Amino acid sequence: MALAAVCELQRSLVARIERLHPQARVIQNYSEILDDPKIDAVLIATPVSSHFSLALAALRAGKHVFVEKPLASSTEEAMQLADEAHSRRKVLMVDHVFVYTPAVRRIRKLIDEGAVGRLYYYDSVRVNLGLFQQDVNVIWDLAVHDLAIMDFLIDERPTMVSAIAAAHVHGRRENIAYLNCFFDSGFTVHVHVNWLAPVKVRQTLLGGSRKMIIYDDLEPDEKIKVYDRGVDDNDQANPMLQFGYRLGDMWSPMLDRTEALLSAVQHFGECIYSGSAPTTDGRCGVRVVQMLEAASRSAAMQGRPVPVEGRKPAAIE
Amino acid sequence: MALAAVCELQRSLVARIERLHPQARVIQNYSEILDDPKIDAVLIATPVSSHFSLALAALRAGKHVFVEKPLASSTEEAMQLADEAHSRRKVLMVDHVFVYTPAVRRIRKLIDEGAVGRLYYYDSVRVNLGLFQQDVNVIWDLAVHDLAIMDFLIDERPTMVSAIAAAHVHGRRENIAYLNCFFDSGFTVHVHVNWLAPVKVRQTLLGGSRKMIIYDDLEPDEKIKVYDRGVDDNDQANPMLQFGYRLGDMWSPMLDRTEALLSAVQHFGECIYSGSAPTTDGRCGVRVVQMLEAASRSAAMQGRPVPVEGRKPAAIE
Amino acid sequence: MALAAVCELQRSLVARIERLHPQARVIQNYSEILDDPKIDAVLIATPVSSHFSLALAALRAGKHVFVEKPLASSTEEAMQLADEAHSRRKVLMVDHVFVYTPAVRRIRKLIDEGAVGRLYYYDSVRVNLGLFQQDVNVIWDLAVHDLAIMDFLIDERPTMVSAIAAAHVHGRRENIAYLNCFFDSGFTVHVHVNWLAPVKVRQTLLGGSRKMIIYDDLEPDEKIKVYDRGVDDNDQANPMLQFGYRLGDMWSPMLDRTEALLSAVQHFGECIYSGSAPTTDGRCGVRVVQMLEAASRSAAMQGRPVPVEGRKPAAIE
Amino acid sequence: MALAAVCELQRSLVARIERLHPQARVIQNYSEILDDPKIDAVLIATPVSSHFSLALAALRAGKHVFVEKPLASSTEEAMQLADEAHSRRKVLMVDHVFVYTPAVRRIRKLIDEGAVGRLYYYDSVRVNLGLFQQDVNVIWDLAVHDLAIMDFLIDERPTMVSAIAAAHVHGRRENIAYLNCFFDSGFTVHVHVNWLAPVKVRQTLLGGSRKMIIYDDLEPDEKIKVYDRGVDDNDQANPMLQFGYRLGDMWSPMLDRTEALLSAVQHFGECIYSGSAPTTDGRCGVRVVQMLEAASRSAAMQGRPVPVEGRKPAAIE
Repeated sequence: MALAAVCELQRSLVARIERLHPQARVIQNYSEILDDPKIDAVLIATPVSSHFSLALAALRAGKHVFVEKPLASSTEEAMQLADEAHSRRKVLMVDHVFVYTPAVRRIRKLIDEGAVGRLYYYDSVRVNLGLFQQDVNVIWDLAVHDLAIMDFLIDERPTMVSAIAAAHVHGRRENIAYLNCFFDSGFTVHVHVNWLAPVKVRQTLLGGSRKMIIYDDLEPDEKIKVYDRGVDDNDQANPMLQFGYRLGDMWSPMLDRTEALLSAVQHFGECIYSGSAPTTDGRCGVRVVQMLEAASRSAAMQGRPVPVEGRKPAAIE
Repeated sequence: MALAAVCELQRSLVARIERLHPQARVIQNYSEILDDPKIDAVLIATPVSSHFSLALAALRAGKHVFVEKPLASSTEEAMQLADEAHSRRKVLMVDHVFVYTPAVRRIRKLIDEGAVGRLYYYDSVRVNLGLFQQDVNVIWDLAVHDLAIMDFLIDERPTMVSAIAAAHVHGRRENIAYLNCFFDSGFTVHVHVNWLAPVKVRQTLLGGSRKMIIYDDLEPDEKIKVYDRGVDDNDQANPMLQFGYRLGDMWSPMLDRTEALLSAVQHFGECIYSGSAPTTDGRCGVRVVQMLEAASRSAAMQGRPVPVEGRKPAAIE
Repeated sequence: MALAAVCELQRSLVARIERLHPQARVIQNYSEILDDPKIDAVLIATPVSSHFSLALAALRAGKHVFVEKPLASSTEEAMQLADEAHSRRKVLMVDHVFVYTPAVRRIRKLIDEGAVGRLYYYDSVRVNLGLFQQDVNVIWDLAVHDLAIMDFLIDERPTMVSAIAAAHVHGRRENIAYLNCFFDSGFTVHVHVNWLAPVKVRQTLLGGSRKMIIYDDLEPDEKIKVYDRGVDDNDQANPMLQFGYRLGDMWSPMLDRTEALLSAVQHFGECIYSGSAPTTDGRCGVRVVQMLEAASRSAAMQGRPVPVEGRKPAAIE
Repeated sequence: MALAAVCELQRSLVARIERLHPQARVIQNYSEILDDPKIDAVLIATPVSSHFSLALAALRAGKHVFVEKPLASSTEEAMQLADEAHSRRKVLMVDHVFVYTPAVRRIRKLIDEGAVGRLYYYDSVRVNLGLFQQDVNVIWDLAVHDLAIMDFLIDERPTMVSAIAAAHVHGRRENIAYLNCFFDSGFTVHVHVNWLAPVKVRQTLLGGSRKMIIYDDLEPDEKIKVYDRGVDDNDQANPMLQFGYRLGDMWSPMLDRTEALLSAVQHFGECIYSGSAPTTDGRCGVRVVQMLEAASRSAAMQGRPVPVEGRKPAAIE
């Protein structure tokens, strides 16, 4: 893979891009990229509202496409992109970047090995004094990360989503939100996102019947701590019997320090060469957008739960 | 004030109480206390379900009453207690113990002085690997603290409450819950309580237009941190203009180290002598139980918001 | 064991002691205790300068003796106490209280099992805004803890001790000190103690060839963290070859929550009944006082190392 | 200022430098730089042992010189460089990089304003699992930072320096050291540096009669915390009177986020244009090397204090 061209509309950035990437053309006309037969793949890092049209044009021009999260601004659009990629046999990958971090991969491994046991809850706090986005609210900007992580960690799909959101600054989009996912198994997901917090927090609790995990993305070394703590629910037949509290060791596995975005782009390249589907392919992008959309609908009803649209993109089943 | 008698049914504790309080009688029959004309006041620290009958009997016997939180297990009962105390001119105080901590009192002072500005949100995390209660779930055991703090900090009353709760251990009450309060002013309250977390967290964020506060009750010295951070929303007429981010100093006021329970009991004594109403009187206890009840109803409907019963105890208005 | 009598000269404390220990006599005359044949053992918790005379009198009166750290204010005195206890076959125990904590015991176990490997260094920070003692400086008040821990953890004795100390408050004893112990094996010990620090710190690093340990006594749960990190010094024959850095997992063993003072007193009782020597017996007390004395001599010479007096109490060898 | 040429002997790095700095020549022969009349200034970032010859040659070639810390590997060499720069009227600046951080500059301001009061102590811990340097030990690699900070913060010069150092890895330089500086005023400085610690720590305590400061360079936002805590030594005439402990607020000033190296290079440029002396000029570099040299001599004598050479570079007085 080599960088052939960069399309940048903001004139003030052109010089800097040229200095960093002297081998690449810097252009203002997106169609130059689409028309260039030597370009195989396109990476789209633009405001969410433009993902759909840019990605669709690229797929139709026969390019493989890598899109920043979320895949699109509606389920309808996301499904159309997934369908288009499928019918044209092109790789469509959405950059759910945390899926490519060593921390999240390690948690997935711990779940797969059975170390965590039956999953109880996923609880995430993702807050900071953050940039108010123009075209999306805090759910689409920050909660999308947790939905993508959750989609990667567990196979079960939520039946319903609810969300509460508030806009505290006049004339601005919602800056604080609380999002829940409901599952048939009893697993619960909760996400707190906030652009108006005094300090930055990135902390996730994952509770299971065998172990509990704290994942703190701001810790330089000990991002994951695995606690052998919980309640031993020995005698399910007789709940009146006292159960025991388990207070065991804590363990923090060393993680490699691979840069997630680099891993993601390499994965994209490998999928192009091998023809295999990326971990975070179009279908995955659709699932996350479906949850975001349900969250938006719920937030408009002060948190009434909303069913997650079950229909999967027909063409790719 | 002096301790005259302790009523303890658990035989194994009697010796220990006698050793700690050699001047007090240790009895098994509650009516001995009610019948003793030299006893002016009764402190009730029993399971929630017994608060109502024990407190009512004490009030009817002409005693002043101090009850652990929450005041009772239903609004109906709580209101009856408040009415009874009012009509008999006895002091009824509910032990919302955080209201008597130097930290919460200092936050109230900051709000009153206008330092915090317009209140945006109250967000609290109160989790640990905790004792599963037999007669109440985690909302009535832990979220009650935040409802009591919030009731003390702000004058506005919520219009609706919603809650989501889940029981992850077979045959046990709900161990995890997320509770929201909705206010006409746009202020939002969120509380996360959990008996099944690997570590103990007691952290509250209070966001306002002028300052943001982090209150961490586990910090030995710096329980309160006041941040001069936020978004300056200068031009409300033209929201398209960029607003500025404010990144100022942090300040942690020294707090005195008074023991909250001691302050609460002293306050109870002063109210008896002066005839004044306690800060956390029967009406306050009713308000908190109303919110707890609304939360329980909402939790049964997966978080649909429920109006908080507006009726105030008629007799005491 | 039962508490028979408490000798307390401060009148203001008598009532409180009587309330807490109604079964014990509270007296002002120490000889009443020594003369009472029903009293077998004496616990001495008084200023350091009085340890020697009080303990000696008790041993001579045929009592077993438990003394707060340090055993005495000079090697000479400490040795005389050890000799006296030995010749009278009485138990003399010094309350090096950290030796009886689950954390220090666990570290000892890790060392004994070989998990830590060859010991490199012990580095301790023990600072806070503390009570300036009247009769001892910060070395005898705080560094004594680390010398006692080190004496327990390792079998090697230091050959030399050095210390630097400074008194920053007019007319007061030294409030800050840095103490070093030198060992033939190359192991190094460093202790920083300070009564004039803004916050409380109790943190010890223990470096070894196989593992490194952080022991933080203020952590509620994770007091010990064991790191699989270091430098692999594979080819000692050819130091020019690059060695490898080892960056492995961290592990925090769960510790029981036994109260150290309780464990110490129980151990004292067991030694009386069994006739065995306590872990922190008179000889141990002598060793620690020898190091403290060497530290004081070094501090008077701005840190010139001073040999630790090698002579062991003759009678007990 | 513009980058004209980079001299890099390591072939493997040449391509990367060329990509990052397409406008600069990448050469292997240092004299090409010295001979180029269009080059006014040279930045030297090489192993310590080469600083002297490279800087001297540059000064003799009429260049202004910016050298990484420490200025040279001996006082003799450092003084010769300072003299050379002085006599040729060239700017010689040593990159004591922490002197150009917003945090250290703010601490200096607090001292200058009198907020800290009389200075009691500076205590610094600078440890991590670090790269063992080939040509210098941990004192010359890490403690140099604290000596440079201290030289900037206070005007008093130490009379003596002592140090203890140990090499725990066979065939390698000292990886752990403790360094002290002694001052006539009673101010004390202590520095703990370690290449073999399990975690990274960068924490400095600065104690004064009015305020105490904690400076933690790893904190993202609150690098400086100012505590209104201490001991009020009111009645110096009668030290037997109890003094009072002061337990006041903590305050963390917001710091700007200027990159220190950038500030340093800008300062270098300004000094060239204006002809003024840099904050960290040759004399400053000499002072720090004098302390490093005294520390090395002391470490060879297990911490016996060594006077700091008082002679200042004659030519520049």
